[in-house]
Amino acid sequence: MKGWLFSGTNKPLELIEKEDPKAIPGQIVIEVKAAGLCHSDVAALQDPGWMPLFPNGPVIMGHEFAGVVIEVGEGVEDFKVGDRVGANPMDRETKITAGYTYDGGYAEKVRVPAKQCVKIPEGVSFIEGAASTDAGITAYRALFSIGQAKEGTKLGIIGIGGLGQFALQMALIKGCEVYATDVSPEARQLAEELGAKKVYDTILDMKEAECDVIVDFAGFGQTTSDALEAIKPQGTVVIVGMGKLESTINTYLMITKEIKLLGSNGGSVEDLQGVYDCFATGKMNPTLVTIPFEEIDKGLEKLKNHEVKGRLVAVFE
Amino acid sequence: MKGWLFSGTNKPLELIEKEDPKAIPGQIVIEVKAAGLCHSDVAALQDPGWMPLFPNGPVIMGHEFAGVVIEVGEGVEDFKVGDRVGANPMDRETKITAGYTYDGGYAEKVRVPAKQCVKIPEGVSFIEGAASTDAGITAYRALFSIGQAKEGTKLGIIGIGGLGQFALQMALIKGCEVYATDVSPEARQLAEELGAKKVYDTILDMKEAECDVIVDFAGFGQTTSDALEAIKPQGTVVIVGMGKLESTINTYLMITKEIKLLGSNGGSVEDLQGVYDCFATGKMNPTLVTIPFEEIDKGLEKLKNHEVKGRLVAVFE
Repeated sequence: MKGWLFSGTNKPLELIEKEDPKAIPGQIVIEVKAAGLCHSDVAALQDPGWMPLFPNGPVIMGHEFAGVVIEVGEGVEDFKVGDRVGANPMDRETKITAGYTYDGGYAEKVRVPAKQCVKIPEGVSFIEGAASTDAGITAYRALFSIGQAKEGTKLGIIGIGGLGQFALQMALIKGCEVYATDVSPEARQLAEELGAKKVYDTILDMKEAECDVIVDFAGFGQTTSDALEAIKPQGTVVIVGMGKLESTINTYLMITKEIKLLGSNGGSVEDLQGVYDCFATGKMNPTLVTIPFEEIDKGLEKLKNHEVKGRLVAVFE
Repeated sequence: MKGWLFSGTNKPLELIEKEDPKAIPGQIVIEVKAAGLCHSDVAALQDPGWMPLFPNGPVIMGHEFAGVVIEVGEGVEDFKVGDRVGANPMDRETKITAGYTYDGGYAEKVRVPAKQCVKIPEGVSFIEGAASTDAGITAYRALFSIGQAKEGTKLGIIGIGGLGQFALQMALIKGCEVYATDVSPEARQLAEELGAKKVYDTILDMKEAECDVIVDFAGFGQTTSDALEAIKPQGTVVIVGMGKLESTINTYLMITKEIKLLGSNGGSVEDLQGVYDCFATGKMNPTLVTIPFEEIDKGLEKLKNHEVKGRLVAVFE
């Protein structure tokens, strides 16, 4: 099979030929139909700080993929050959992750533990199925598994980028009342078009909405401390974005308002199921841009140069 | 009746004669038997920043009291004359508080809403009943209502002062495995004597205990950020203490470890019931020092000068 090999920082991705993966107990082999391109891959290609995440040397990249099951290992009962599936790339317990610790989805075939896979509902494309496995589950987990948003929740979203768009659409499907804020006028306009009840220029302005839950997809330190100012008493602020790695927060406010500040990291296979359920409603419409599998290297370059609107997904013809 | 009147910052408390309070619908009149002296009263006597909490002018101080019901207002069904009761001084919804918004417990009699009162169990003294209503409920809420500690929880306590001692004893009664840390060697020794499983010199050292919940009764900024370092993945840090009013926290850690940081403020009437249930076991033994009612002004002076070990409680002969 063909696959895009990552050999280390500042080395170009290389399209190589490699032996097909074979099923082993508990795992399945997927013929990849779509693989999303992620900013973290761009970062790993440039920044040696990422190398500890690649402990096993050169590896096929890609941690956001969907396809068709072509082989099932011993003991796998939930999947059969021909099933359309997406995979949560990371085992949450061991942190072992496709495209980092072992060969990932920038390839014609990939082998993953069956317990990390979810069937893609009818009517949902492989492209959507792939894009769901990273931006989708991260947004889903922050809103629903950690933030406990539900029908009627007044939800504030900080940052209407890739994750924020997923979040906004899923929140509306679940019946939340959605408020949004972003520093970019374009992003604010998009939030309005997608159906936010009100869009604010600043996080502090969002205080008037008296949100039950605010999710910070930016994570620029000040965004988190502003969210604590804006949230209603006994409300919840969820932090997801890592724009900056620290924040100076007002603990007087946290105590007197009894605020909850919760970290949310990636997503689980249950979260992936949740995203697919949202897609199955037919109401999700994230901006997804496709490129051919053979141009994954060029796609990552575009991503690096901020030339992409929406999520890039490589497809296999 | 007699009562100690607060007239403003830097004015001495004054022992005055005032008309007895009469019961009104939904409220009861208590003959005060014990009233705890609180550092916040010392602060209000010195710092004009506290004056907004006294919007109705001169008022009898005291927000930590217990006594005997001597009159019940219309519609009060849960209490009768002769009941031994303690009161949660604050209505959590309206923030209206005895000793601040209206006449409090540094008096022979006090009138409070019946819904804020709890019967003191047999075998529990008025002195204990009074001390429970501030330090007791604040510690109880942080550990159990907000932190959700229960039997078997590995609980870390930062700061073995007034609140921390209450917390440690109640946690042991509830079957928690308790770890403690304090900057003071004396406080650390006390924590050991009270039954902590292990006592640490620093918060960061406590990381080895892998606590499920850490409660920060100090709240000095660094104590909170150190608690986030020390807590186990997906654990909970509760902040109660307001030694400093801000903290610079590591959001990378909060996100990747999916930590919960929760503010806890005061306590509710349910929390007061919880404290009394702990006292009813006979296993609580906080350090309580009594003084006569007539010496409340001198007691507050001692508190100001840090001449008191344990909680000062004024009693009526």
